[in-house]
Amino acid sequence: MILKRFYETRLAQASYLVACAATGEAIVIDPNRGFDTYLEAAEEEGVRIVAVTETHIHADFLSGSRELAKLTGATLYLSDEGDAEWKYGFGENVRLVHDGDAFMIGNLKFEVVHTPGHTPEHIAFLVTDTPAGETVQSAFTGDFVFVGDVGRPDLLERAAGYEGTMEAGARRLFRSLEKFKSLPDGLLIWPAHGAGSACGKALGGVPVSTLGYEKRVNWALRIEDEQVFVNEVLAGQPEPPRYFAQMKVRNKVGPALRSDRPAPSHLGAHRLTELVEQGAIVVDARPSAEFAAGHVPGTLSIPLGKGFTNWAGWFVPYDTPFYLIAMGEAEAHEATNALAMIGLDEVAGWFAPTAVRAWAEETGRPLRVVTQIDCHDLMAEADRVQVIDVRGQTEWDDGRLPFAQHRFLGTLGKNLDDLDRERPVVVQCHSGGRSAVGCSLLLNAGFRDVRNLAGGITAYREAGYPVTGP
Amino acid sequence: MILKRFYETRLAQASYLVACAATGEAIVIDPNRGFDTYLEAAEEEGVRIVAVTETHIHADFLSGSRELAKLTGATLYLSDEGDAEWKYGFGENVRLVHDGDAFMIGNLKFEVVHTPGHTPEHIAFLVTDTPAGETVQSAFTGDFVFVGDVGRPDLLERAAGYEGTMEAGARRLFRSLEKFKSLPDGLLIWPAHGAGSACGKALGGVPVSTLGYEKRVNWALRIEDEQVFVNEVLAGQPEPPRYFAQMKVRNKVGPALRSDRPAPSHLGAHRLTELVEQGAIVVDARPSAEFAAGHVPGTLSIPLGKGFTNWAGWFVPYDTPFYLIAMGEAEAHEATNALAMIGLDEVAGWFAPTAVRAWAEETGRPLRVVTQIDCHDLMAEADRVQVIDVRGQTEWDDGRLPFAQHRFLGTLGKNLDDLDRERPVVVQCHSGGRSAVGCSLLLNAGFRDVRNLAGGITAYREAGYPVTGP
Amino acid sequence: MILKRFYETRLAQASYLVACAATGEAIVIDPNRGFDTYLEAAEEEGVRIVAVTETHIHADFLSGSRELAKLTGATLYLSDEGDAEWKYGFGENVRLVHDGDAFMIGNLKFEVVHTPGHTPEHIAFLVTDTPAGETVQSAFTGDFVFVGDVGRPDLLERAAGYEGTMEAGARRLFRSLEKFKSLPDGLLIWPAHGAGSACGKALGGVPVSTLGYEKRVNWALRIEDEQVFVNEVLAGQPEPPRYFAQMKVRNKVGPALRSDRPAPSHLGAHRLTELVEQGAIVVDARPSAEFAAGHVPGTLSIPLGKGFTNWAGWFVPYDTPFYLIAMGEAEAHEATNALAMIGLDEVAGWFAPTAVRAWAEETGRPLRVVTQIDCHDLMAEADRVQVIDVRGQTEWDDGRLPFAQHRFLGTLGKNLDDLDRERPVVVQCHSGGRSAVGCSLLLNAGFRDVRNLAGGITAYREAGYPVTGP
Amino acid sequence: MILKRFYETRLAQASYLVACAATGEAIVIDPNRGFDTYLEAAEEEGVRIVAVTETHIHADFLSGSRELAKLTGATLYLSDEGDAEWKYGFGENVRLVHDGDAFMIGNLKFEVVHTPGHTPEHIAFLVTDTPAGETVQSAFTGDFVFVGDVGRPDLLERAAGYEGTMEAGARRLFRSLEKFKSLPDGLLIWPAHGAGSACGKALGGVPVSTLGYEKRVNWALRIEDEQVFVNEVLAGQPEPPRYFAQMKVRNKVGPALRSDRPAPSHLGAHRLTELVEQGAIVVDARPSAEFAAGHVPGTLSIPLGKGFTNWAGWFVPYDTPFYLIAMGEAEAHEATNALAMIGLDEVAGWFAPTAVRAWAEETGRPLRVVTQIDCHDLMAEADRVQVIDVRGQTEWDDGRLPFAQHRFLGTLGKNLDDLDRERPVVVQCHSGGRSAVGCSLLLNAGFRDVRNLAGGITAYREAGYPVTGP
Repeated sequence: MILKRFYETRLAQASYLVACAATGEAIVIDPNRGFDTYLEAAEEEGVRIVAVTETHIHADFLSGSRELAKLTGATLYLSDEGDAEWKYGFGENVRLVHDGDAFMIGNLKFEVVHTPGHTPEHIAFLVTDTPAGETVQSAFTGDFVFVGDVGRPDLLERAAGYEGTMEAGARRLFRSLEKFKSLPDGLLIWPAHGAGSACGKALGGVPVSTLGYEKRVNWALRIEDEQVFVNEVLAGQPEPPRYFAQMKVRNKVGPALRSDRPAPSHLGAHRLTELVEQGAIVVDARPSAEFAAGHVPGTLSIPLGKGFTNWAGWFVPYDTPFYLIAMGEAEAHEATNALAMIGLDEVAGWFAPTAVRAWAEETGRPLRVVTQIDCHDLMAEADRVQVIDVRGQTEWDDGRLPFAQHRFLGTLGKNLDDLDRERPVVVQCHSGGRSAVGCSLLLNAGFRDVRNLAGGITAYREAGYPVTGP
Repeated sequence: MILKRFYETRLAQASYLVACAATGEAIVIDPNRGFDTYLEAAEEEGVRIVAVTETHIHADFLSGSRELAKLTGATLYLSDEGDAEWKYGFGENVRLVHDGDAFMIGNLKFEVVHTPGHTPEHIAFLVTDTPAGETVQSAFTGDFVFVGDVGRPDLLERAAGYEGTMEAGARRLFRSLEKFKSLPDGLLIWPAHGAGSACGKALGGVPVSTLGYEKRVNWALRIEDEQVFVNEVLAGQPEPPRYFAQMKVRNKVGPALRSDRPAPSHLGAHRLTELVEQGAIVVDARPSAEFAAGHVPGTLSIPLGKGFTNWAGWFVPYDTPFYLIAMGEAEAHEATNALAMIGLDEVAGWFAPTAVRAWAEETGRPLRVVTQIDCHDLMAEADRVQVIDVRGQTEWDDGRLPFAQHRFLGTLGKNLDDLDRERPVVVQCHSGGRSAVGCSLLLNAGFRDVRNLAGGITAYREAGYPVTGP
Repeated sequence: MILKRFYETRLAQASYLVACAATGEAIVIDPNRGFDTYLEAAEEEGVRIVAVTETHIHADFLSGSRELAKLTGATLYLSDEGDAEWKYGFGENVRLVHDGDAFMIGNLKFEVVHTPGHTPEHIAFLVTDTPAGETVQSAFTGDFVFVGDVGRPDLLERAAGYEGTMEAGARRLFRSLEKFKSLPDGLLIWPAHGAGSACGKALGGVPVSTLGYEKRVNWALRIEDEQVFVNEVLAGQPEPPRYFAQMKVRNKVGPALRSDRPAPSHLGAHRLTELVEQGAIVVDARPSAEFAAGHVPGTLSIPLGKGFTNWAGWFVPYDTPFYLIAMGEAEAHEATNALAMIGLDEVAGWFAPTAVRAWAEETGRPLRVVTQIDCHDLMAEADRVQVIDVRGQTEWDDGRLPFAQHRFLGTLGKNLDDLDRERPVVVQCHSGGRSAVGCSLLLNAGFRDVRNLAGGITAYREAGYPVTGP
Repeated sequence: MILKRFYETRLAQASYLVACAATGEAIVIDPNRGFDTYLEAAEEEGVRIVAVTETHIHADFLSGSRELAKLTGATLYLSDEGDAEWKYGFGENVRLVHDGDAFMIGNLKFEVVHTPGHTPEHIAFLVTDTPAGETVQSAFTGDFVFVGDVGRPDLLERAAGYEGTMEAGARRLFRSLEKFKSLPDGLLIWPAHGAGSACGKALGGVPVSTLGYEKRVNWALRIEDEQVFVNEVLAGQPEPPRYFAQMKVRNKVGPALRSDRPAPSHLGAHRLTELVEQGAIVVDARPSAEFAAGHVPGTLSIPLGKGFTNWAGWFVPYDTPFYLIAMGEAEAHEATNALAMIGLDEVAGWFAPTAVRAWAEETGRPLRVVTQIDCHDLMAEADRVQVIDVRGQTEWDDGRLPFAQHRFLGTLGKNLDDLDRERPVVVQCHSGGRSAVGCSLLLNAGFRDVRNLAGGITAYREAGYPVTGP
């Protein structure tokens, strides 16, 4: 048995290639749209992808199952559980599976277990390496059981608009867990997400766990009372990114094929001026520091870091072409791929950084800068400025600047009316990255004196200043 | 004045970016479809591409002028010389130019000179750096004057089917040259091709020359009698690659835009079996040695080397989708770009080398190998085998194996009827590269005992065996 | 808790970075000499390497512990178990540890367990994520327990010359296992090797396992009788590569620092001729197919694939400078790094492939080729040729060509005397890779008619020919 | 004849590979230490480097001649002109040449012409492609004649301390030019430098010229009176970078071999704190914007851009180990190579950007930021601040901010005493790059309120503010 795990950091998402070493047949579980990863892994291991599957209709990224099956000629195994609302709407070379079904990939037996809760059609796979006996070796649990957490049952209601489903989902999840706990302690658990995913609230940083360990340590598996579990699992969940609303329906009817789309063109520097004038959406993917040192007013700062896909999902509209500014060709491609993960395919072209300077030349206007302020200077002005903390609710609850206000970055743009436009605004986050994006939003909204707290609450804390919190 | 030369080795083709250092305005001359090269050079130099031009309707590659102008918003300067047959058929943001016209790029004056011969509408540009005075500094001569040669006037007749035009062209060329010779000796000559191009017969390996030097050394400029010139210039020209026939018309009506096409997908290894069975065209772009060590029967060997574009132009049909086998993703992209240079855009997908092995596994058939023979072993069997020399006519004329037959690689596939299929065939070229392609053609044509002369005539010569020739 | 696993394919070797998410402190376990991997992972995760450790004195690669500790300023945790023979001989910033010791990395508790058997000083680490309670989460087992196997106790005797130690080791190992089995079923097991390592005989392709699963499935943990275990564990172990003999002593006294050595220079093509004449050792790291298509007689073919490090360890001497032929700069660096993993640091320079051709030009001698033979042609000549199977003993036992002889590649060079030099030799392996190396050895030993079975026993089997075996 | 030009942007330095196409023999002229460039070019062209030469003992970069000859086994052709002071001090495989000597590289004739002026031993090469007749085709002029300029004769006195040599040099140069002018107009001129080099004052941006053109346009060739020439050529020369003083002597006695030095190690982030405390020299090679957004006080900003080598030559001492902060491994290698060009080989290790953040964490001190100011805000405060223009003399002369002071960046650190430390300082250059370096120098010198003029005089000019100047 060969097992390879792929981790897409920007989505905190795990997918797997599992192969029978004896026959060279392989299955891919929960693929995203980064196809080459799976094809290359199969080539490296000398195995052939004959099956593709997914644990459920994902809400947080565009599924690559359909296209990977097409590129490889593999059979697509899809859940036929859940009611009519949850049936997949695409169907070439598909085999529908139900609770209790089993299929072989070479000598590996895959048993299907229906595990509703996160979503109604959710399934998990129990894998047995049959030449080694009858002991189940691994469970691929998707968004059912994570390391240290479980898949949230409120997402459909909170992100996809399925009113009144979250309590029922929580109860179904409790029952799915009860059943799951009866499996052996030594079972490996391979979930579909890691730390940082918005599909749960307390995911750990270890890629794998065991049922024995989770039963002792995972808060969700330790609760034995259904109502206590329901209350707990619905509390304190992070705000789902705006783009989640788009994913379910696309993944259900069949995600668009990436291979149908041309790569975005490199555009000549001075076309930027004309596009900005026409009000085109331009995402400046350069590092925060470059944006801070000089950018074109009206452009949106989403630096090509770990959070790129997520913030793009909050701020970039679907179905409107938009443009990128990237440090170079490699970065433009990386950004395009990162956007494709959530179906933001409408990149109409990209500009190199010289385009920013060219805009200034052509318009005769200075580039706009984002001013940094350090924590000492902030303290000196603390009563004069408004400090906006743009972190998530949990981070805010865990400790904050005494004089800060909390406005989450994802919804900041719609939450500015009561700010005093005459007073300076200092934007703050954990270490200065998200607050730079926040500065860009405020500047584009017409605020004039906006500063970024260099190093965020981390530098502030390290310098010994007081923090309010638990 | 800033001048950058770009040399596309596979086409032996030169293009230029010329910019005014004072104003930052730039023009690109004779761009191919590798747009990023020009955009990146402009960004590196801090200049802006405001104009794009070409010296003539190219016959040997797909012009990038139209698309580069579109990506940059630049004005397109096109020749309006030549008769109705030679008018460009596309027209956004175009300025037509005639003999004697001049235009400015910043402080640089570009004078248009009509230089018919290679083609009727051909123009050259004389550039003067006006702040430095009135002395013409450079001539961009396109396919008019090369280093050591001139652009052949027979291509239209021989490659594009314009019957009866070559002698008239030769005479026009003679007169264009006579006029050109009156310019100062110190004039720099920047042509559109270097050594190896099929647009001439004796191009040198130096990127630039001067009028003074060419007048003394270039055979074409030294001939003073028109008829002698006509006879000479029409003699000994290399056979034009088959794809040349496609270029003229495409370049005239407006070459397809590359940015409209998706990149070819990486396909799962075992789809190859099915495609080969269906008779799909599969170009195996791996190195000759890999192909020789084992390949799928029926696939075509065109190694991704210097000759890749050229041989693809001979063997790959236009308008039929085809597939690539490449060593990896980088090579697949390189091959796709190399094919795009001549408009072979129909790459439907690519396979990694594991697909070759997978074919053998699935079909249970052994991979086909190409056997090498070295020159000593060849000599031992010389009277038993048929030796096919697949080099060009000029190379053949310059020296050959005494017992070889000449059949040029480009037309080899249509020239096999009189070969004895019962006797071994040894294919030979300069150093073993083209002959490997030739072996693949013979094997696909059903010959069974085909061997490649390792090291070609070079190794044979170095080993001290006799060569027939001048 | 953050856990990252690094897998060095050529050594089948795993190392780990484990960090406390709360404090940002990290430890690296069993690092090899690929330092940048660990430094980059730490940077990516935003953690700081404060500790470096290893489970034992490795026999199969050069340890990177000492140098990584130096580059990062980290504390080195080393085992103080085992007798005087097994004490580490280097000592800057070292903390010696014993069975029962515990130390903290941030909030993570590391308990040291002495697990002799593979080596006397071997230790494992039990890790508890203390904020999550008292349950042990992971065991880092080094070469003690693998997925599906245990660390062989015979290596010291068979590879490093410690006479008479293997049975005692086997008994110690049995007792270490007995103790280990008492830990909870849900314990994760992270070993130091994966499939293909010569440190065991049956390692699985899954990166991690659990104690519960291994107790049911791992042959070694299922045996309950000590003597049965001893007999079993000493039987059928693969032949240890020759270089293993070098590793113990180097790792004990302190492995040389890589950062003290310059990178090998790219040498001009025609220096190869002179070096070959002087009898220099030249490793041709090009792909097999390139070597087969033409190579310099006397050079050694070790293609830069998965087996590169291992075969270099068999064939390349320590302490004699040698040269590489590589496809390009990237490959030369990759090869140098792969060799550094086992301390083969004496790369004196590298040549690009043109050097091979240049040798032929300068000497006037033809390049030597390796002829392929396919399985059909082999069958036609089966009674005339000698077939040498160069695979490992286990592979041979599992099935072989009826008319083949077994001579393992690693010792082939010393095992040629009784071969008939007048008859053709066909070399065969699993799929044609190792046999190409074997051909090179035979050709260098003076055999003249040597052929490589294309596709090895795999192609032979797929074509339906009979195999002898169990 | 094959001719390839190599241009090292950071040195504005050109070198050449010239080969005989018929025999495959090649010479390299004026190589720098980027050996691989030449080796790869030779391999690509299929030629062999049999000779290496240089036009003179360079003052602006470390010569690669000696090492390239060693790596290739080539003969080194060195000038034996000039007096005892100017004799090369190294001698393996060297052939000394004099005015009037000629040697063949294949069929190419190289004639040596002594052209003193820039330096006493300076030679140029006249190349004739003998199969094409007796006409001289190219002159490789080194630092004798540039495109649009001539090599300055004052460098020895101004940079290397040879008192009283510059007027004599100017006279010698005049005579060398007079002789040179008698060659044919159509001669190609290939110089050793392009625009931006400090070896002249008016070098053009075109890579090549002709004698005919230079005679009409180059100011130096147009002057017919010796005294007028002497006055002119000694006036307005740019200040030679500090490191020039080091180059002559090293190049004369034999530059150190790069291949003897290990590559700098990647160091763990938190070693930076300790090194900074110990006063180590740390060059922060990240982009200006990153440095501005947060850096460790005491580190030196030299962004890895076009000016990197030059500014390092001004600020980094020879023979003291120093450290780099680079964006990643590729940038660390690029920086190391760029420094090696001028012999700054003592890079003791490099840090990734996380080390900057780690410093702040460990020390609890905030990172220092460089504040940007835009031209509008500057105008509002113009009478309150001190504006320091750090550009070169010529740029200053060509136009400046009316209220600026001129202090050239290279010597800024020694030129600060009369600045008012109580008033804000705004540093300004052409477009904001060099001024960022200037800010770093001032901050390290203890100035507290230092700001960088965003976009420099360019943005200021574009915004329509008045400039003082000619």
